[in-house]
Amino acid sequence: MAENTTDELMRATYLALCKHGYADLTMQDIADESTKSKAALHYHYDTKQELLLAFLSFLYANFEERIRTPARSDPTDRLMTFIDSALTPPQRDDQLAFQTAILEIKAQAPYDDEFSEHIARFDDLLSEQCRSVIVDGIEQGVFREVDPDAVATFFVTLFNGAHVRWVTENQADDRTRALFINYIQSQLLAEDAPAVVGE
Amino acid sequence: MAENTTDELMRATYLALCKHGYADLTMQDIADESTKSKAALHYHYDTKQELLLAFLSFLYANFEERIRTPARSDPTDRLMTFIDSALTPPQRDDQLAFQTAILEIKAQAPYDDEFSEHIARFDDLLSEQCRSVIVDGIEQGVFREVDPDAVATFFVTLFNGAHVRWVTENQADDRTRALFINYIQSQLLAEDAPAVVGE
Repeated sequence: MAENTTDELMRATYLALCKHGYADLTMQDIADESTKSKAALHYHYDTKQELLLAFLSFLYANFEERIRTPARSDPTDRLMTFIDSALTPPQRDDQLAFQTAILEIKAQAPYDDEFSEHIARFDDLLSEQCRSVIVDGIEQGVFREVDPDAVATFFVTLFNGAHVRWVTENQADDRTRALFINYIQSQLLAEDAPAVVGE
Repeated sequence: MAENTTDELMRATYLALCKHGYADLTMQDIADESTKSKAALHYHYDTKQELLLAFLSFLYANFEERIRTPARSDPTDRLMTFIDSALTPPQRDDQLAFQTAILEIKAQAPYDDEFSEHIARFDDLLSEQCRSVIVDGIEQGVFREVDPDAVATFFVTLFNGAHVRWVTENQADDRTRALFINYIQSQLLAEDAPAVVGE
Protein backbone atom coordinates (compact mmCIF):
# COMPACT_ATOMS: atom_id res chain seq x y z
CA MET A 1 0.00 0.00 0.00
CA ALA A 2 1.33 3.47 -0.86
CA GLU A 3 2.65 5.34 2.17
CA ASN A 4 0.18 8.19 1.76
CA THR A 5 -2.72 5.70 1.65
CA THR A 6 -1.53 4.17 4.92
CA ASP A 7 -1.19 7.63 6.45
CA GLU A 8 -4.66 8.58 5.26
CA LEU A 9 -6.24 5.42 6.69
CA MET A 10 -4.43 5.81 10.02
CA ARG A 11 -5.62 9.39 10.24
CA ALA A 12 -9.17 8.30 9.35
CA THR A 13 -9.03 5.63 12.07
CA TYR A 14 -7.90 8.25 14.59
CA LEU A 15 -10.76 10.58 13.65
CA ALA A 16 -13.35 7.79 13.65
CA LEU A 17 -12.21 6.57 17.09
CA CYS A 18 -12.49 10.12 18.46
CA LYS A 19 -15.98 10.50 17.02
CA HIS A 20 -17.49 7.06 17.71
CA GLY A 21 -15.33 5.40 20.36
CA TYR A 22 -14.18 1.84 19.99
CA ALA A 23 -17.23 -0.24 20.93
CA ASP A 24 -19.49 1.00 18.13
CA LEU A 25 -16.82 1.66 15.51
CA THR A 26 -17.50 0.29 12.03
CA MET A 27 -15.40 0.09 8.87
CA GLN A 28 -17.94 2.49 7.34
CA ASP A 29 -17.18 5.07 10.08
CA ILE A 30 -13.50 4.87 9.18
CA ALA A 31 -14.19 5.07 5.44
CA ASP A 32 -16.32 8.16 6.08
CA GLU A 33 -13.27 9.95 7.50
CA SER A 34 -11.21 9.20 4.37
CA THR A 35 -11.52 9.58 0.61
CA LYS A 36 -11.80 5.76 0.30
CA SER A 37 -14.84 3.54 0.12
CA LYS A 38 -15.58 0.83 2.67
CA ALA A 39 -14.75 -1.72 -0.07
CA ALA A 40 -11.35 -0.10 -0.55
CA LEU A 41 -10.70 -0.35 3.19
CA HIS A 42 -11.54 -4.05 3.11
CA TYR A 43 -9.13 -4.46 0.21
CA HIS A 44 -6.29 -3.36 2.51
CA TYR A 45 -7.57 -4.82 5.80
CA ASP A 46 -9.77 -7.92 5.95
CA THR A 47 -11.43 -6.99 9.22
CA LYS A 48 -11.87 -4.07 11.60
CA GLN A 49 -9.65 -5.99 14.02
CA GLU A 50 -6.84 -6.13 11.45
CA LEU A 51 -7.11 -2.42 10.74
CA LEU A 52 -7.07 -1.60 14.47
CA LEU A 53 -3.99 -3.75 15.04
CA ALA A 54 -2.26 -1.88 12.20
CA PHE A 55 -3.37 1.35 13.86
CA LEU A 56 -1.88 0.27 17.22
CA SER A 57 1.42 -0.52 15.46
CA PHE A 58 1.34 2.90 13.83
CA LEU A 59 0.70 4.56 17.22
CA TYR A 60 3.50 2.56 18.77
CA ALA A 61 6.00 3.69 16.14
CA ASN A 62 5.05 7.33 16.78
CA PHE A 63 5.13 6.86 20.53
CA GLU A 64 8.55 5.26 20.32
CA GLU A 65 9.91 8.14 18.32
CA ARG A 66 8.41 10.66 20.74
CA ILE A 67 9.66 9.17 24.00
CA ARG A 68 13.16 8.12 22.99
CA THR A 69 15.39 10.84 24.32
CA PRO A 70 19.07 11.10 23.49
CA ALA A 71 21.04 9.05 25.99
CA ARG A 72 23.67 11.76 26.21
CA SER A 73 21.49 14.34 27.92
CA ASP A 74 21.26 14.74 31.68
CA PRO A 75 19.27 11.92 33.36
CA THR A 76 17.18 14.35 35.44
CA ASP A 77 16.26 16.35 32.32
CA ARG A 78 15.42 13.15 30.46
CA LEU A 79 13.23 11.96 33.31
CA MET A 80 11.38 15.27 33.47
CA THR A 81 10.80 15.38 29.70
CA PHE A 82 9.48 11.88 29.95
CA ILE A 83 7.16 12.66 32.86
CA ASP A 84 5.87 15.74 31.12
CA SER A 85 4.90 13.69 28.12
CA ALA A 86 3.33 10.93 30.26
CA LEU A 87 1.53 13.13 32.79
CA THR A 88 0.33 16.10 30.75
CA PRO A 89 -3.44 15.73 30.48
CA PRO A 90 -5.13 15.90 27.07
CA GLN A 91 -5.54 19.57 26.16
CA ARG A 92 -8.07 19.33 23.35
CA ASP A 93 -11.42 17.55 23.08
CA ASP A 94 -10.18 15.24 20.33
CA GLN A 95 -7.20 14.21 22.47
CA LEU A 96 -9.51 13.33 25.37
CA ALA A 97 -11.86 11.47 23.03
CA PHE A 98 -8.88 9.56 21.71
CA GLN A 99 -7.62 8.66 25.20
CA THR A 100 -11.13 7.40 25.94
CA ALA A 101 -11.06 5.11 22.90
CA ILE A 102 -7.61 3.86 23.95
CA LEU A 103 -8.95 2.98 27.40
CA GLU A 104 -11.76 1.03 25.71
CA ILE A 105 -9.18 -0.89 23.70
CA LYS A 106 -7.14 -1.54 26.87
CA ALA A 107 -10.25 -2.92 28.55
CA GLN A 108 -10.75 -5.28 25.60
CA ALA A 109 -7.16 -6.54 25.73
CA PRO A 110 -7.85 -9.42 28.15
CA TYR A 111 -10.39 -10.83 25.69
CA ASP A 112 -8.05 -10.72 22.71
CA ASP A 113 -4.46 -11.97 22.65
CA GLU A 114 -3.39 -9.77 19.75
CA PHE A 115 -4.75 -6.60 21.33
CA SER A 116 -3.18 -7.69 24.58
CA GLU A 117 0.29 -8.02 23.00
CA HIS A 118 0.00 -4.67 21.24
CA ILE A 119 -1.15 -2.91 24.41
CA ALA A 120 1.58 -4.49 26.54
CA ARG A 121 4.25 -3.10 24.20
CA PHE A 122 3.40 0.48 25.20
CA ASP A 123 3.89 -0.20 28.90
CA ASP A 124 6.98 -2.28 28.18
CA LEU A 125 8.51 0.60 26.26
CA LEU A 126 7.62 3.08 29.00
CA SER A 127 9.15 0.76 31.61
CA GLU A 128 12.27 0.19 29.59
CA GLN A 129 12.76 3.92 29.03
CA CYS A 130 12.23 4.72 32.72
CA ARG A 131 14.58 1.97 33.69
CA SER A 132 17.29 3.15 31.31
CA VAL A 133 17.11 6.74 32.57
CA ILE A 134 17.29 5.52 36.19
CA VAL A 135 20.26 3.27 35.47
CA ASP A 136 22.11 6.18 33.80
CA GLY A 137 21.27 8.47 36.72
CA ILE A 138 22.63 5.97 39.23
CA GLU A 139 25.79 5.44 37.18
CA GLN A 140 26.37 9.19 36.96
CA GLY A 141 25.80 9.55 40.70
CA VAL A 142 22.83 11.92 40.33
CA PHE A 143 20.25 9.31 41.42
CA ARG A 144 20.34 7.17 44.53
CA GLU A 145 20.99 3.42 44.48
CA VAL A 146 17.34 2.45 43.94
CA ASP A 147 16.07 -0.72 42.26
CA PRO A 148 15.56 0.52 38.66
CA ASP A 149 12.99 -2.17 37.78
CA ALA A 150 10.87 -1.54 40.84
CA VAL A 151 10.93 2.23 40.39
CA ALA A 152 10.08 1.90 36.68
CA THR A 153 7.11 -0.31 37.61
CA PHE A 154 5.93 2.27 40.10
CA PHE A 155 6.18 5.07 37.53
CA VAL A 156 4.34 3.16 34.81
CA THR A 157 1.57 2.24 37.25
CA LEU A 158 1.16 5.91 38.08
CA PHE A 159 1.07 6.86 34.37
CA ASN A 160 -1.66 4.28 33.82
CA GLY A 161 -3.65 5.71 36.72
CA ALA A 162 -3.37 9.25 35.37
CA HIS A 163 -4.64 8.01 32.00
CA VAL A 164 -7.74 6.39 33.57
CA ARG A 165 -8.56 9.48 35.60
CA TRP A 166 -8.30 11.81 32.61
CA VAL A 167 -10.89 9.66 30.92
CA THR A 168 -13.30 8.69 33.71
CA GLU A 169 -13.22 11.94 35.64
CA ASN A 170 -11.99 14.37 33.07
CA GLN A 171 -9.42 15.07 35.75
CA ALA A 172 -6.84 17.35 34.32
CA ASP A 173 -5.31 18.96 37.36
CA ASP A 174 -1.58 18.73 37.66
CA ARG A 175 -1.32 17.87 41.35
CA THR A 176 -0.31 14.35 40.41
CA ARG A 177 2.61 15.75 38.46
CA ALA A 178 3.60 18.06 41.33
CA LEU A 179 3.56 15.23 43.89
CA PHE A 180 5.40 12.99 41.56
CA ILE A 181 8.17 15.54 41.15
CA ASN A 182 8.25 15.81 44.91
CA TYR A 183 8.67 12.05 45.08
CA ILE A 184 11.54 12.11 42.60
CA GLN A 185 13.19 14.96 44.45
CA SER A 186 13.12 13.17 47.79
CA GLN A 187 13.40 9.51 46.77
CA LEU A 188 15.41 9.36 43.63
CA LEU A 189 17.78 12.30 43.40
CA ALA A 190 21.05 11.96 45.25
CA GLU A 191 21.18 14.24 48.27
CA ASP A 192 23.64 16.63 46.71
CA ALA A 193 21.91 16.74 43.29
CA PRO A 194 20.48 20.10 42.20
CA ALA A 195 16.72 20.55 42.70
CA VAL A 196 14.41 19.61 39.86
CA VAL A 197 13.46 22.60 37.73
CA GLY A 198 9.76 23.41 37.86
CA GLU A 199 9.07 21.71 41.19
CA MET B 1 -38.51 -6.48 45.27
CA ALA B 2 -37.77 -8.99 48.04
CA GLU B 3 -34.27 -8.62 49.44
CA ASN B 4 -33.27 -12.15 48.50
CA THR B 5 -34.41 -11.54 44.90
CA THR B 6 -32.20 -8.43 44.74
CA ASP B 7 -29.29 -10.39 46.19
CA GLU B 8 -29.82 -13.20 43.72
CA LEU B 9 -29.93 -10.84 40.73
CA MET B 10 -26.85 -8.94 41.91
CA ARG B 11 -25.00 -12.22 42.29
CA ALA B 12 -26.19 -13.33 38.84
CA THR B 13 -24.96 -10.03 37.36
CA TYR B 14 -21.56 -10.55 39.00
CA LEU B 15 -21.27 -14.08 37.58
CA ALA B 16 -22.46 -13.05 34.12
CA LEU B 17 -19.97 -10.14 34.01
CA CYS B 18 -17.14 -12.52 34.99
CA LYS B 19 -18.16 -14.98 32.30
CA HIS B 20 -19.06 -12.66 29.39
CA GLY B 21 -17.49 -9.27 30.16
CA TYR B 22 -19.45 -6.09 29.76
CA ALA B 23 -19.47 -5.44 26.00
CA ASP B 24 -21.34 -8.59 25.02
CA LEU B 25 -23.46 -8.99 28.15
CA THR B 26 -27.16 -9.67 27.59
CA MET B 27 -30.13 -9.86 29.96
CA GLN B 28 -30.34 -13.53 28.98
CA ASP B 29 -26.76 -14.10 30.23
CA ILE B 30 -27.75 -12.65 33.60
CA ALA B 31 -31.00 -14.66 33.74
CA ASP B 32 -28.95 -17.79 33.00
CA GLU B 33 -26.97 -17.25 36.21
CA SER B 34 -30.17 -17.01 38.30
CA THR B 35 -33.35 -19.01 38.86
CA LYS B 36 -35.34 -16.25 37.08
CA SER B 37 -36.41 -15.95 33.48
CA LYS B 38 -35.32 -13.09 31.24
CA ALA B 39 -38.94 -11.83 31.40
CA ALA B 40 -38.77 -11.77 35.21
CA LEU B 41 -35.55 -9.72 35.00
CA HIS B 42 -37.27 -7.22 32.73
CA TYR B 43 -40.11 -7.01 35.21
CA HIS B 44 -37.64 -5.63 37.79
CA TYR B 45 -35.32 -3.71 35.46
CA ASP B 46 -36.53 -2.19 32.19
CA THR B 47 -33.14 -2.33 30.51
CA LYS B 48 -29.69 -3.86 30.88
CA GLN B 49 -28.46 -0.34 31.61
CA GLU B 50 -30.89 0.00 34.53
CA LEU B 51 -29.83 -3.35 35.96
CA LEU B 52 -26.15 -2.44 35.67
CA LEU B 53 -26.69 0.89 37.41
CA ALA B 54 -28.43 -0.99 40.25
CA PHE B 55 -25.47 -3.36 40.31
CA LEU B 56 -23.00 -0.44 40.57
CA SER B 57 -25.01 0.95 43.50
CA PHE B 58 -24.93 -2.46 45.14
CA LEU B 59 -21.14 -2.66 44.67
CA TYR B 60 -20.73 0.82 46.03
CA ALA B 61 -22.65 -0.02 49.20
CA ASN B 62 -20.42 -3.06 49.76
CA PHE B 63 -17.28 -1.11 48.97
CA GLU B 64 -18.28 1.63 51.38
CA GLU B 65 -18.82 -0.86 54.16
CA ARG B 66 -15.49 -2.51 53.42
CA ILE B 67 -13.27 0.58 53.33
CA ARG B 68 -14.76 2.57 56.18
CA THR B 69 -12.41 2.00 59.05
CA PRO B 70 -13.16 3.11 62.59
CA ALA B 71 -11.89 6.66 63.06
CA ARG B 72 -10.58 5.79 66.49
CA SER B 73 -7.82 3.48 65.30
CA ASP B 74 -4.27 4.60 64.59
CA PRO B 75 -3.97 6.63 61.32
CA THR B 76 -0.96 4.62 60.10
CA ASP B 77 -2.81 1.34 60.69
CA ARG B 78 -5.89 2.71 58.94
CA LEU B 79 -3.83 3.83 55.97
CA MET B 80 -2.14 0.44 55.69
CA THR B 81 -5.43 -1.45 55.88
CA PHE B 82 -6.74 0.82 53.22
CA ILE B 83 -3.73 0.34 50.94
CA ASP B 84 -3.86 -3.41 51.38
CA SER B 85 -7.44 -3.47 50.20
CA ALA B 86 -6.73 -1.11 47.27
CA LEU B 87 -3.42 -2.62 46.13
CA THR B 88 -3.87 -6.35 46.67
CA PRO B 89 -4.14 -7.88 43.19
CA PRO B 90 -7.07 -10.19 42.35
CA GLN B 91 -6.22 -13.65 43.69
CA ARG B 92 -8.76 -15.76 41.84
CA ASP B 93 -9.70 -15.99 38.17
CA ASP B 94 -13.23 -14.75 38.81
CA GLN B 95 -11.87 -11.70 40.65
CA LEU B 96 -9.60 -10.85 37.72
CA ALA B 97 -12.48 -11.41 35.26
CA PHE B 98 -14.59 -9.10 37.36
CA GLN B 99 -11.92 -6.37 37.48
CA THR B 100 -11.73 -6.67 33.69
CA ALA B 101 -15.48 -6.07 33.35
CA ILE B 102 -15.21 -3.10 35.72
CA LEU B 103 -12.48 -1.58 33.54
CA GLU B 104 -14.80 -2.01 30.53
CA ILE B 105 -17.52 -0.15 32.40
CA LYS B 106 -15.04 2.59 33.39
CA ALA B 107 -14.07 2.97 29.72
CA GLN B 108 -17.77 3.40 28.83
CA ALA B 109 -18.32 6.07 31.50
CA PRO B 110 -17.44 9.03 29.25
CA TYR B 111 -20.19 8.00 26.84
CA ASP B 112 -22.87 7.74 29.51
CA ASP B 113 -23.59 10.32 32.21
CA GLU B 114 -25.22 7.86 34.60
CA PHE B 115 -22.34 5.40 34.41
CA SER B 116 -19.98 8.32 34.78
CA GLU B 117 -21.63 9.48 38.01
CA HIS B 118 -21.69 5.98 39.45
CA ILE B 119 -18.03 5.37 38.60
CA ALA B 120 -16.92 8.74 39.98
CA ARG B 121 -18.47 7.87 43.36
CA PHE B 122 -15.94 5.08 43.91
CA ASP B 123 -12.96 7.37 43.41
CA ASP B 124 -14.63 10.12 45.42
CA LEU B 125 -15.09 7.74 48.33
CA LEU B 126 -11.49 6.51 48.07
CA SER B 127 -10.26 10.11 47.99
CA GLU B 128 -12.42 11.15 50.90
CA GLN B 129 -11.24 8.19 53.00
CA CYS B 130 -7.58 8.83 52.18
CA ARG B 131 -8.02 12.49 52.96
CA SER B 132 -9.69 11.79 56.29
CA VAL B 133 -6.93 9.40 57.41
CA ILE B 134 -4.28 11.94 56.40
CA VAL B 135 -6.02 14.78 58.24
CA ASP B 136 -6.25 12.62 61.39
CA GLY B 137 -2.58 11.64 61.07
CA ILE B 138 -1.52 15.27 60.78
CA GLU B 139 -3.68 16.29 63.76
CA GLN B 140 -2.20 13.50 65.84
CA GLY B 141 1.33 14.50 64.82
CA VAL B 142 2.14 11.12 63.23
CA PHE B 143 2.02 12.46 59.65
CA ARG B 144 3.81 15.50 58.27
CA GLU B 145 2.05 18.73 57.31
CA VAL B 146 1.25 17.60 53.75
CA ASP B 147 -1.66 18.83 51.61
CA PRO B 148 -4.28 16.13 52.33
CA ASP B 149 -6.21 16.73 49.07
CA ALA B 150 -3.14 16.53 46.90
CA VAL B 151 -1.82 13.40 48.60
CA ALA B 152 -5.26 11.73 48.38
CA THR B 153 -5.35 12.52 44.64
CA PHE B 154 -1.91 10.99 44.21
CA PHE B 155 -2.95 7.82 46.07
CA VAL B 156 -6.18 7.35 44.13
CA THR B 157 -4.33 7.84 40.83
CA LEU B 158 -1.92 5.11 41.85
CA PHE B 159 -4.80 2.78 42.83
CA ASN B 160 -6.37 3.35 39.40
CA GLY B 161 -3.08 2.52 37.72
CA ALA B 162 -2.71 -0.71 39.69
CA HIS B 163 -6.23 -1.69 38.64
CA VAL B 164 -5.48 -1.17 34.92
CA ARG B 165 -2.25 -3.13 35.10
CA TRP B 166 -3.86 -6.10 36.85
CA VAL B 167 -6.26 -6.26 33.95
CA THR B 168 -4.15 -5.43 30.91
CA GLU B 169 -0.95 -7.16 31.97
CA ASN B 170 -2.18 -9.59 34.54
CA GLN B 171 0.43 -7.87 36.63
CA ALA B 172 0.10 -9.08 40.15
CA ASP B 173 3.49 -8.41 41.64
CA ASP B 174 3.55 -6.41 44.83
CA ARG B 175 6.44 -4.09 44.02
CA THR B 176 3.99 -1.24 43.63
CA ARG B 177 2.80 -1.85 47.17
CA ALA B 178 6.37 -2.01 48.48
CA LEU B 179 7.39 1.26 46.80
CA PHE B 180 4.21 2.90 47.92
CA ILE B 181 4.92 1.97 51.53
CA ASN B 182 8.40 3.35 51.03
CA TYR B 183 6.83 6.58 49.81
CA ILE B 184 4.57 6.80 52.84
CA GLN B 185 7.46 6.08 55.15
CA SER B 186 9.63 8.82 53.74
CA GLN B 187 7.06 11.42 52.64
CA LEU B 188 4.14 11.16 54.96
CA LEU B 189 5.20 9.81 58.33
CA ALA B 190 6.61 12.33 60.76
CA GLU B 191 10.32 11.87 61.28
CA ASP B 192 9.94 10.45 64.75
CA ALA B 193 7.00 8.15 63.88
CA PRO B 194 7.55 4.39 64.19
CA ALA B 195 8.33 2.52 60.95
CA VAL B 196 5.44 1.04 59.00
CA VAL B 197 4.94 -2.63 59.77
CA GLY B 198 5.52 -4.87 56.78
CA GLU B 199 7.73 -2.48 54.87
